[in-house]
Amino acid sequence: MDSGKIFRIGFLGMGTVAQGVWKHLQANREIMRQRLGGEIELAKACVRDISKRRAVEIPESKLTQDPYEIINDPSIDIVCELMGGTGKALELTLAALRAGKVVVSANKAVICSHGAEIFAEARKCGGAYFFEASVAGGIPIIKVLREGLIANRFSLIYGILNGTCNYILTRMERENATYETILKDARRLGYVEADESLDIDGWDAAHKIAILAYLAHGCWIGTDKMLVTGIRGIRLEDMIWARDFNCRVKLIAAIRKLENGALFASVYPALLPLTDVVANVNEVYNAVSLNGDVVGRTVHIGRGAGQDATASAVIADISDALKYLLGAPAQMSVADLAEPRMATLDEVDGDFYLRFEVEDKAGVLATIASVLAKEDISIKLLHQRKHDSSGKAWIVMTTHKTTEGAIKKACQSLSSLPVVSSEPFVIRIFDSQV
Amino acid sequence: MDSGKIFRIGFLGMGTVAQGVWKHLQANREIMRQRLGGEIELAKACVRDISKRRAVEIPESKLTQDPYEIINDPSIDIVCELMGGTGKALELTLAALRAGKVVVSANKAVICSHGAEIFAEARKCGGAYFFEASVAGGIPIIKVLREGLIANRFSLIYGILNGTCNYILTRMERENATYETILKDARRLGYVEADESLDIDGWDAAHKIAILAYLAHGCWIGTDKMLVTGIRGIRLEDMIWARDFNCRVKLIAAIRKLENGALFASVYPALLPLTDVVANVNEVYNAVSLNGDVVGRTVHIGRGAGQDATASAVIADISDALKYLLGAPAQMSVADLAEPRMATLDEVDGDFYLRFEVEDKAGVLATIASVLAKEDISIKLLHQRKHDSSGKAWIVMTTHKTTEGAIKKACQSLSSLPVVSSEPFVIRIFDSQV
Repeated sequence: MDSGKIFRIGFLGMGTVAQGVWKHLQANREIMRQRLGGEIELAKACVRDISKRRAVEIPESKLTQDPYEIINDPSIDIVCELMGGTGKALELTLAALRAGKVVVSANKAVICSHGAEIFAEARKCGGAYFFEASVAGGIPIIKVLREGLIANRFSLIYGILNGTCNYILTRMERENATYETILKDARRLGYVEADESLDIDGWDAAHKIAILAYLAHGCWIGTDKMLVTGIRGIRLEDMIWARDFNCRVKLIAAIRKLENGALFASVYPALLPLTDVVANVNEVYNAVSLNGDVVGRTVHIGRGAGQDATASAVIADISDALKYLLGAPAQMSVADLAEPRMATLDEVDGDFYLRFEVEDKAGVLATIASVLAKEDISIKLLHQRKHDSSGKAWIVMTTHKTTEGAIKKACQSLSSLPVVSSEPFVIRIFDSQV
Repeated sequence: MDSGKIFRIGFLGMGTVAQGVWKHLQANREIMRQRLGGEIELAKACVRDISKRRAVEIPESKLTQDPYEIINDPSIDIVCELMGGTGKALELTLAALRAGKVVVSANKAVICSHGAEIFAEARKCGGAYFFEASVAGGIPIIKVLREGLIANRFSLIYGILNGTCNYILTRMERENATYETILKDARRLGYVEADESLDIDGWDAAHKIAILAYLAHGCWIGTDKMLVTGIRGIRLEDMIWARDFNCRVKLIAAIRKLENGALFASVYPALLPLTDVVANVNEVYNAVSLNGDVVGRTVHIGRGAGQDATASAVIADISDALKYLLGAPAQMSVADLAEPRMATLDEVDGDFYLRFEVEDKAGVLATIASVLAKEDISIKLLHQRKHDSSGKAWIVMTTHKTTEGAIKKACQSLSSLPVVSSEPFVIRIFDSQV
């Protein structure tokens, strides 16, 4: 079949990912024509600097510095927003939707902070908005979640959503290296975003879990309503001690629906048992585990970033945009739920691993134990590990089931004790049961 | 959005999977209406015995024994073929397509043996044919392969496609149990198909890899053109000795495109390194690893069978059928390649693990070594392991890179040696590089 139509694509931004899309689309025109019956034309790209040399050759006649030359061009059908950022990207996305364009985006930040507005505009304008590349790079997780598993409700979605953190943790463990050493190397390799806190402190993963939460539960959860901790506090010793529990430390993003209906969204370092496939996903790879009420558990693994992996996802969106232009119904009318109830820390329970430094003297353990007892926290295992330096020791312990709230209070009490000389570092023992 | 249309579904067959679909569709009507703008109605089911009690209650007015009451009913839009088998299923599928129905199927056997005919008919009739449930149960692998990863060519696809075999291998390894013991248990639990050879000898996995090969390469590869070996010959000792190589034995189905363009399709027991996530997929779970030229490697894991997992896939297809009926272009016009060139055994290389029984006497190793040398096979590691019974020993060896052809000839020569008292059992050391 062949509709004979040619659909024209305009690009906002021509950075690494956009160049990858341009390159691979040129190679894939024929297959998309065969499979979908629509042809595509790379029509125009808006860039900051027209004369800049690029790895992909684009005729100067197709370049512009004015995004509205693309948005207001009635011959352009699809706009790829690959410029990033939130301010200008939001303005142009809304303008493109209002101009009747189908918009494809890889911009998790703008979706996370303005998703409700963008989707409302898309619905109102009869346009469509595709964003596969915004979560987990090349893994087609958005398509899996809302099409392949459409029959399901998801009580738990969790996974590794930040490749940079996974790369750092993997190398720390493999090379017995400290966090600082590997972080330096990751910076050198260009793996860390300019705003390092996005990666290291978990905000990038938080943006992505917010998008998955929207798809699964139909509501937008701000990162301010999540429990977000990054990998900054992880010590090499944690990686090593994790092995004693047959576990591995991973930065896990999760959205869980509690039995009482409340949602809990989080990003934190967690101990995953080595028997969990997610624990065996290393380096820059991402993994997403979906617990569906019909299908059971599925897990999807792939590269979470990089030019080609992200381009693969953008091209999948362009192909869906084509299908939409050829008559497919829009697929984004997830019912917007009323404001969801977010779980309080006292509702969320689990087992915990705590690690902190103490003065190595008599009576310390008794003091610690009484602090924990006050919060009804029952110790499962406690290990005092000698420092090589004098006078201090590490306490490593795991708890029986308790709540996030109790752990938070206990940590506050512990850090105020004179004998405790480091802020307690918490690693959740991840519960993948639903 | 809401098109206000109601689409009517008829079922051919009302067995376990169909009942799962019926049950979950009733629960999901509203969400599909919200997401797709089309409503569905469970219109009619063709069964062998109308009066039979079923777990799902279906009013007698919706039951028929005549499939043509569904196929020739102009008010029915979608036909779900969930009866299985090849003869009658083919006839009814073609008849339904000719009657203008959209057909959804979970029937891998009929697709594998008559796919070319079915797809040609679907194209000719302007109908559409969806078959997500035919491969890897609840994993939406067909959607991932042809939509989510549309930008990619696949040089290697491999994975665990038969849950029954994976269950048997997992339990053998965990419980140090023999193949026969666990097979008996799997039978008792109803995990083994009535025709056991389908599972145990690899034919079920071969059907599934044929479908993935079609999607990736656009051609139908008959199982007669594949190298197919099941798990029947695996001994507990192989599972144990695999650990010495940091590997696990899995039944792996694969379709590989060699550098020279030839295709090699296979199902065989293979040693996978424990660092491969696929090696850590156990019990009845399936896993599919896709190596795309743009995205790199992605892996997808989930339940490969069972009422609910399969129903999840069928419902995803019904939702795609709805989209098609609402105007989406058909997605099956993969170019049918000319007859592909299948690789000869001499073109396919790799490392191998061989295990066979010999008379434990002087000179045996020299004889064996000379047989292998004749085929230019270089031994990497050779281990003679004593039997507890007298006079015999196991030879376990691995080879350096050689070809399938050389191994085949060497095994023939070995088994004709008087000192070799068991057919050599071959386990491929799986090469996941592309």
